[in-house]
This record gives sequence, structure tokens and C-alpha cells, in this order.
Amino acid sequence: MDSITTREQDYSQWYLDVLAAAGLCDYSPVKGCMVLKPHGFAVWDLIRNELDRRFRDTGHVNAYFPLLIPVSFLSKEAEHVEGFAKECAVVTHHRLRAAEGGGVEPDPASRLEEPLVIRPTSETIIWHMYGQWIQSWRDLPILINQWANVVRWEMKTRPFLRTTEFLWQEGHTAHATSAEAQAEARQMLEVYASFARDFLAIPVTEGVKSASERFAGAVDTYTIEAMMQNGWALQAGTSHFLGQNFAKAFDVTFQSATGEREHVWATSWGVSTRMVGAIIMTHSDDTGLLLPPAVAPIQVVLTPIWKTDAEKATTLAFADEVRAALGARFRVKLDDRDQLKPGAKYFEWERKGVPLRLEIGPRDVAARSVFAAVRTGGKKYGIPFEGVADAVAAALDGVHTELYRRAAERRVQRTLRVESYQEFKERLEGGGFFLVPWHDDAAWEARIKEETRATIRCFPLEGQEEAAGKVCFASGRPATHMAIFARAY
Amino acid sequence: MDSITTREQDYSQWYLDVLAAAGLCDYSPVKGCMVLKPHGFAVWDLIRNELDRRFRDTGHVNAYFPLLIPVSFLSKEAEHVEGFAKECAVVTHHRLRAAEGGGVEPDPASRLEEPLVIRPTSETIIWHMYGQWIQSWRDLPILINQWANVVRWEMKTRPFLRTTEFLWQEGHTAHATSAEAQAEARQMLEVYASFARDFLAIPVTEGVKSASERFAGAVDTYTIEAMMQNGWALQAGTSHFLGQNFAKAFDVTFQSATGEREHVWATSWGVSTRMVGAIIMTHSDDTGLLLPPAVAPIQVVLTPIWKTDAEKATTLAFADEVRAALGARFRVKLDDRDQLKPGAKYFEWERKGVPLRLEIGPRDVAARSVFAAVRTGGKKYGIPFEGVADAVAAALDGVHTELYRRAAERRVQRTLRVESYQEFKERLEGGGFFLVPWHDDAAWEARIKEETRATIRCFPLEGQEEAAGKVCFASGRPATHMAIFARAY
Repeated sequence: MDSITTREQDYSQWYLDVLAAAGLCDYSPVKGCMVLKPHGFAVWDLIRNELDRRFRDTGHVNAYFPLLIPVSFLSKEAEHVEGFAKECAVVTHHRLRAAEGGGVEPDPASRLEEPLVIRPTSETIIWHMYGQWIQSWRDLPILINQWANVVRWEMKTRPFLRTTEFLWQEGHTAHATSAEAQAEARQMLEVYASFARDFLAIPVTEGVKSASERFAGAVDTYTIEAMMQNGWALQAGTSHFLGQNFAKAFDVTFQSATGEREHVWATSWGVSTRMVGAIIMTHSDDTGLLLPPAVAPIQVVLTPIWKTDAEKATTLAFADEVRAALGARFRVKLDDRDQLKPGAKYFEWERKGVPLRLEIGPRDVAARSVFAAVRTGGKKYGIPFEGVADAVAAALDGVHTELYRRAAERRVQRTLRVESYQEFKERLEGGGFFLVPWHDDAAWEARIKEETRATIRCFPLEGQEEAAGKVCFASGRPATHMAIFARAY
Repeated sequence: MDSITTREQDYSQWYLDVLAAAGLCDYSPVKGCMVLKPHGFAVWDLIRNELDRRFRDTGHVNAYFPLLIPVSFLSKEAEHVEGFAKECAVVTHHRLRAAEGGGVEPDPASRLEEPLVIRPTSETIIWHMYGQWIQSWRDLPILINQWANVVRWEMKTRPFLRTTEFLWQEGHTAHATSAEAQAEARQMLEVYASFARDFLAIPVTEGVKSASERFAGAVDTYTIEAMMQNGWALQAGTSHFLGQNFAKAFDVTFQSATGEREHVWATSWGVSTRMVGAIIMTHSDDTGLLLPPAVAPIQVVLTPIWKTDAEKATTLAFADEVRAALGARFRVKLDDRDQLKPGAKYFEWERKGVPLRLEIGPRDVAARSVFAAVRTGGKKYGIPFEGVADAVAAALDGVHTELYRRAAERRVQRTLRVESYQEFKERLEGGGFFLVPWHDDAAWEARIKEETRATIRCFPLEGQEEAAGKVCFASGRPATHMAIFARAY
């Protein structure tokens, strides 16, 4: 089996090796598109189910809008088309015909009058529909989410983190007032942040984007930023307050309770399969994948150990009992394969990120106990069969807590302060979140990006008061914000 | 509110009216593509969750393959390209640019070297990947399912039944032997058939397609055919034994246990959002939508009735108790809207297909009981609060049973026998499944389709022995099959 490059040696290669060793995804014959293999898809499915539950709990419902969008729709919001036109897959024909010399080609007679783009995001088509659904304040709010695939033609791709096609959810809400829409955008940011912490064991920084990093068409873009193990940032989810921009572009108005016509207020918010990349880059180690229990398709693997046929019968029988005792509460796999030695099984399940392994040998059967190996490390320990489910729950909680602790500690250690732009440039290669006083200025921001490839990840929601009386680390002018600069995926 | 055309008056218009009155879907600005509104999407979501469970129970796992397929892949299987080339959305560019005179257009500089099609189905890209995943018999079977959107450019569309884009699942399995693959194809047909009966209350006929109605690239196509209220057939799901066709097209071989190289055997199987259309056309009535309880997003609606503020307080309080008593077992909606009279509420929820309504007026509060109105009809009746959950369960079971009974009775009554092609032509307009002895012959089949627009829906799996000694109703030659002819959606 292929070995995994260490993080120390080459962080980017380590990431690809972890993916391959765990069997999460594969490259496809279509440039920039990946295949989500069953193990990788199962992680996404767990993310999806839990987020869907949290969306419902906050009053949202699911719907589905078309994949294809007329190109003219994209042009209706000026910034939006600017942001997405350069990366659109364009459908121009609706039929193939036999080509001379074999094969098929687009049939020229089937050229579309108006080309269609595959949705890069769905604001335009959804606001077209909302225009038909909204007449009065009684039709508001609309709180819709969509689970879908989208396509953005990317030149440089990396599995999960940046792919031409990806899976995501996109919430699109319509409101009668600005305040309500802003509260919605902030609420969904909180949903994402608490989900990342409680479910993925990823501490995130909540903040607002600078004007140049905003979503194309948004008034404010809120973000959760996670720190990867190399100190780079990964934007793990965004929530946008869209103001009335899309309502104006698609002329969506409503009659208020007092009889006036007003444009509708909007939000949109999304997370994608890149969250799977965030999980891997936050938690995995040089052994391979390490999954937080809540998103582990297999939370507990049982590995019976035997030498003789008689031992095989008794260890398998006991393993079956253990599985039955755990099955209702946990996702359990009993690895009863004959052809693999125990060591090879341990190796395989460790690389697949299973948080807890329970070894069951003849002596364990005799003692009616199992031997627990926790994927985050530490001494192996015995668990008596009585109460095994509670002990497993505790072990899994322990994995979550330990993963969160490590990530949080890393974030504290690598949130850095610098006195000058010079110092920033010198220390940037080491990675980390650079928390600096900043005078908001798009020209300076562009220069820093150009010179260092670092970007403003966000103005954190907490601690902005610290900017008062400080000067910008770059321009020396009075600070308007505290900003986090970092290299990012 | 718009009225619903009766089935008697105009069955096609009735269907569209039911959809609109229930708020299941809407037309989109993209030809042939519809919007699944929240109520319609929720029905699909319930279908999806239950099928997904049944797929897992039969050993399948989910994965995800790219939306876009190189056109050359489509050509690799001769019948497959023949079947799908004429209805493919073709992506030819990956960027838009500003057009003269405003708007945007495909940027000629972004033309793709090889055009891509949006998947009409995924056999080709999946078998390309399986070619990389399969080396030995140890890699088999592969039992993968995918939930996805697909696009087939349709000229004549009808919401849910035939749309350019639709949502579906497609299973794609790979096996070491023909027998195993055939058993898989038959197993999945059974999964679909029992799902249709037990979950959707739709009796279906299981059968095999004639050669001309087969999936493009299949050796055998199995189908479940449902009878709509106008006597037309609707193909509600198909399961294909693909033989080695795709394995040969993509050169996918495996080393058997005895060391030989053999081509892999395949199946694929799918159901789509057209199942929602089947539900509507099977069960709904002139009042509007009527949903089987298992796929009703709202199974029970509580409608409190009050005149005074004091009555409002007590009926709402009691309705809340009822909701709490039902909430854990059923999908319940408490309609506490002020602005609507009870009659208007009844009307609305009936049109939305809610199987059971519980009315709660001041006298019901006093008696601590509710008044049940079942959507399938019958006298309203009181249910005491004690044991309300069990009574609701019984009422919902009753709705399912009644819906199934009605559909099964209709199928029996309208499964027709004819003595001659002449009689067939005369009676066809009345609808129904024509069960006839048939001498398999593609030319005759094409002639019948041309002359009557009726097609062979299937050769039913049960009752084929009846063909022995009979002559074909059309050609008069010795019968090879019992066939069902019908007009179909």
C-alpha cells in the first residue's frame, strides 16, 4: 500500500495522500471534476443530514430550482455577472449528431437561441421565481434552502477544496425589512459556526469580509474561517446580506401592511463539499485520515483476532454480541475478513479515519471485555462488555474533545501579531492568522495580495474595539478595523 | 382561488390544476424545466429517504460521479449513443464575455476542445471509473447508487412526468457473473415494486420490456408499470440487466478466482421525480391532491375553531396538547391562522392532499376529543384525546388501504382482453391495459405504435404460460408472449 507523505515533508502532498489512502475520492476524466467515492460521500451525507436538521429547526424548507440559467439572467445584477461570467459552463446546443470520421459532435441545427449556463449559484433564477411568488407582505418571509450541484470553471483545482463541479446547499431568503434580512444572515452564520464546532470539532472565526472579498452582489458577506494545520485559512461557509440588490435586478416588490410598494430584502448562504476538505486538513495526521465521530461513516470498528478455527468461532460470536450491543447507538463495522492479519486491518481502518477500534482476542472473550484503541492516541485499555455502549460513547466524546482542543490550541498559538508590513512579509511563510490593525483601503489590500498572496480573511466579529486608537500595520493611517490576514485555500 | 377541472371534463387539465392548487411545482423560465416548490420537494424527499433506506438494506452505498461527460464517452456503446444523442444538453464553452450591445455571450476563446454533455444517465462515466477500480474478483461486486439530477432535452414536457431536467437515483452495479447481475436486476425491480405498493399505495405490474422499448444498451429492461385513472400506463421505475455491454465498451475486465480475465457483468436501475406524477395521477380526485400517508409532508392537520377570544384561547391550548400527543409519531401541522375561516382552511388542506384533518371546536375541548375528517371520504367521527395517537395511526392506515384498494380495483376492471386488432383499436380510446397474446415482432410493434400510439408496456412476469397455444391478437401467428399494450405517459 502506498505510504503517506508527512505533513512536515510536504503538506500539499500529504493531503492528497490522505485522500487516496482513505478512498474518499478519485480523479475523473473531466478536468477539475472529482468522483466522490462511497467513503467520501458518506461523510458529506452525514454533514448534509445534520445541517438539514438545523435548517429545519430554524424554520427553513427545501425546494429545487433548475440547473440551467439563461445567460441574460446573469447580466441583470452588475456585480454578479462580473463575479461569475469568467467561470461558467455554457450550454449552446441540445443535440448531438454523427461526426464525419466517427464519433459525435454538437448538431449545428440544435443551437439554442439563448445559451444557458450551468448554475454557478442560483440567486438569479431564484429571484426570478420569487418575483412571481411575492405580492404582499403576507407572502414573506420566504425561507428556502436547496441542496444542489453547481459548476464554476476552475483552472487550478484541488479535491474537495476547489473543484469545477461541487455539491453544496444554498439558502435563499426573502424578507420585508432590512433588519429581518440582516438578522437572518447573522443567524445562519451562527448555525454554520456552531455546526463546525459541535459537529466537526473545528473552531472557526466568525467575521465579515472586506469589500473586495465579498460575494458578487452582496452588501455584506459573513464568513467562518478555519485554520488548517499549516496555518493557512479555509473559508468554510458564508452568509450574505444581499440588501435589495437582487430584488431590484429582478424587480421584486411587495405591498407592505401600510399599502406601499417596496423592494424585497434578501439573504443567501451556503456551505459545500469543501467542508470535507476542512475536516481532513484540520484533524488528520501522518497516519492518515482522522474523522470527528459525528461525521465518521464508521465510528467503531471491531477487529476480532484468532489463530485457530475454534478461536475464530468464539471471537466472532463475542464480536457479534458486542456489535449488537452497540448497533443501535453507533455506526459499527465488524471486520471479520479471513485473509487479512490484525495488523493490516488496524492499518487500513486507521487510514480510513475510524475514531475507535475495539480489538477482541481469545483472552478478551474469556474475560468478556474488549480492548480499545483510540485513533487520537493514548494507551489502549480494556472495556468490560457490561456497559460497553456507555464506554464507547465516552471514548467518542473524548475523540471529539481532543480534536477540538488540538485545533483550538493551534489557532491560539498561530494567531500572530506583527508590528509592521515588513515583519508580516518575513513571518508570513510560516503560516498563521495575522491579527492586525487595518485602515480599510482596497488599493493597499490589492497590493498586499499581489506582493504576498495573503488576503483579508475577515474582520472578526469579536474584538473590533481593539482597533480604536491604533494605526494600520501597513499604511500607518488610523485603523478602521482589526483584520485577519492569511494565506488561504 | 382557481377551481379544479374535473377528471371527466379534461384529465390532462385536471392534472395541471391539481399541481397548481397544491403548490407542488411551478414553471421555470427555462423550457421544459420546472421548479419543485417546497410542498412538492417534500414529497420527493420522503420518497428519497425511504428508497435510500431500502437500498442500504440490500447492501448498496451512495457515491457521486461528475455531471459532465465527454461526448466521446457516449459514443463508446453503439446503442447507448443512438438512444441519447438526440436529447443531450451540450456544453461547448467555459466562459462568458461582454457582448456588443450589452449582455453577455459565450467567449469564443473559451471553446472546449472536446464538448461535454450534461449526463442524461451515467453508465458511461461510471463504467470508465469502474475500469480503474476493478482488477480482480475481490473488487466485486460493486453496489453503488447515486442521487442526482439529469438532463434529457425533451420537446413535449409535462410537470413531473417528463421534464428536461429531473431528479432521480441511478444504481450501477458490477458483478463477476451473469447470474449474479441478473439476480441484482430482479432484486431491485422487487424493491421498486414493493416500495410502490407499501409506501405509495400504487399497485404495479412487473414485467420485461420488448426489444424496442429497452434501455439503450441493456440486454433486458425490467419495469414496473402503473395504471393511471384514465387507464393510461406510467412506467414508474426500471431495472436493467446490461450484460457485458458497458464492460466491453469501456474494456472493464477482472481476474477471476481461477486466474482468467473476463468482462464484468452490469446492472443499472432508476426511479425519478416522475414517481410524484404517478402518485398524483393514481390517487388524487376532483377536490385536488390526495397523498398516501407515507409521502404526505403533512399527515395530520389540526384546525381549531373559535368565535370568541376566550374560545380561541381554550381551543388553541387543547390543539397544542393534541399536537404534542401526535408530534413524535406523525407529521402534524396546527393551523392557527386568524384570518381564515375554518371552511377556507379545510378547502386549502384538502387541496394540498393532507390525509387526515382533526377539527377542534369549543365542544370538542369540553369533551376532550377531536373530530376526524378523512381525506378519502366517509362520515366524520369523534376521537377521544386518550388514545388519539393510535386512532390517528389507524385512520392513516385506513387511507393507505383505501387508496390501494381503489387503484387495485381499477386495475382489475380495466385490464382488458380483446379478440382482434380491430377490437383493440376500437376500445383503445377508453384506456386500460390490454393483455393480449403476442407474437414478438418489431415491425408489427412499430405499426401498432404508429397507428394507435399504444406501446407494449411489458411482458408481465406473471402469467406468461397463458400464451401457450394462443395466437397473436395482431398478426395471428403463434403467440410467444402475453403482452400488455396501452397508451402511456
